[in-house]
Amino acid sequence: MSDYANRGATRRRLIDVAIELFKQHSVAGTSLQMISDELGLTKSAIYHHFRTRDELLSAVMEPLITEVTAIVDAAEARRGVRARADHLLGGYAALAVSNRELVALLTGDPGVVALLRTRPDWSAVIERQMALLADVDPGVGGKVKAALVMSGIASAAGVEYGDVDDATLQHHLVTAGRRALGLRVPHGGG
Amino acid sequence: MSDYANRGATRRRLIDVAIELFKQHSVAGTSLQMISDELGLTKSAIYHHFRTRDELLSAVMEPLITEVTAIVDAAEARRGVRARADHLLGGYAALAVSNRELVALLTGDPGVVALLRTRPDWSAVIERQMALLADVDPGVGGKVKAALVMSGIASAAGVEYGDVDDATLQHHLVTAGRRALGLRVPHGGG
Repeated sequence: MSDYANRGATRRRLIDVAIELFKQHSVAGTSLQMISDELGLTKSAIYHHFRTRDELLSAVMEPLITEVTAIVDAAEARRGVRARADHLLGGYAALAVSNRELVALLTGDPGVVALLRTRPDWSAVIERQMALLADVDPGVGGKVKAALVMSGIASAAGVEYGDVDDATLQHHLVTAGRRALGLRVPHGGG
Repeated sequence: MSDYANRGATRRRLIDVAIELFKQHSVAGTSLQMISDELGLTKSAIYHHFRTRDELLSAVMEPLITEVTAIVDAAEARRGVRARADHLLGGYAALAVSNRELVALLTGDPGVVALLRTRPDWSAVIERQMALLADVDPGVGGKVKAALVMSGIASAAGVEYGDVDDATLQHHLVTAGRRALGLRVPHGGG
């Protein structure tokens, strides 16, 4: 393996181990030291890739935020508040289902909340995402429903239901989300 | 102040400081050492009240679990799955609204999940609570909706919406939850 590929493989292992430890201890409860101990690496070997836990957390979150941005952009291009909310809901449920544990893990973690405070570009995307759902019902009721649906989808996607395929899980998440927001549920949408 | 009252006051301060630190660092990211540092107490002064972080976390959760148990008992005494789900929903939303930050904080925290594994009596109450909602729609769809509604209510209750009174917030949480579960929403419940 070339040095470059090797470096990439170590970076990937660091990210994978970080996700495992975040699950067990939350982001805030995981230190770079714990990650290096788990991998049997020295701290300086990790510093080569990530200088702080937040740099590592950013690398975990970056691909998710990129996907959310694409969904938000596409939703905002639709005509009508209901079509926009519906597009966002479908896209977000698909993202949560493809990253079941990760999205549940990151939602509401104080370490993620703290990182978002330092990343106004990411916070702005999340605010646009909430607004797309909240705009269905202007006022505080719409905001409460939007918060319930976004957090609810993220958490419910991470629950173990036994043998449930992605399409079925996504269908139920979207149906519940549509109903909560007062959007039309297609016939047979159980 | 008597020794007894003094002891009670210290215990209360420990719990209050623990909740503040849990909010900032998650449960898993908070140690007894951090709590003693914050209060300017020695670790042995804390040990007098709580031997481990989990003992302290149990003291934080105990009153909430007691309330949830009462709600679950009352809901199970109702006749019909929909009436039962509706009772649970109303009670849980009221509990979440009266403890806005605490319930949001504890939902999904890995430290809480780990503690629940050691408390089968508490886990059983939470399972009965989920079953009361999931039974509205037997099968995986009902389970997904129940998970979405429970986590969604807990998280959405902890969001800052500006000046919203408890009754309004509770009304919106219950309405969104009823809709997501496919329960009847009273006229004007928008």
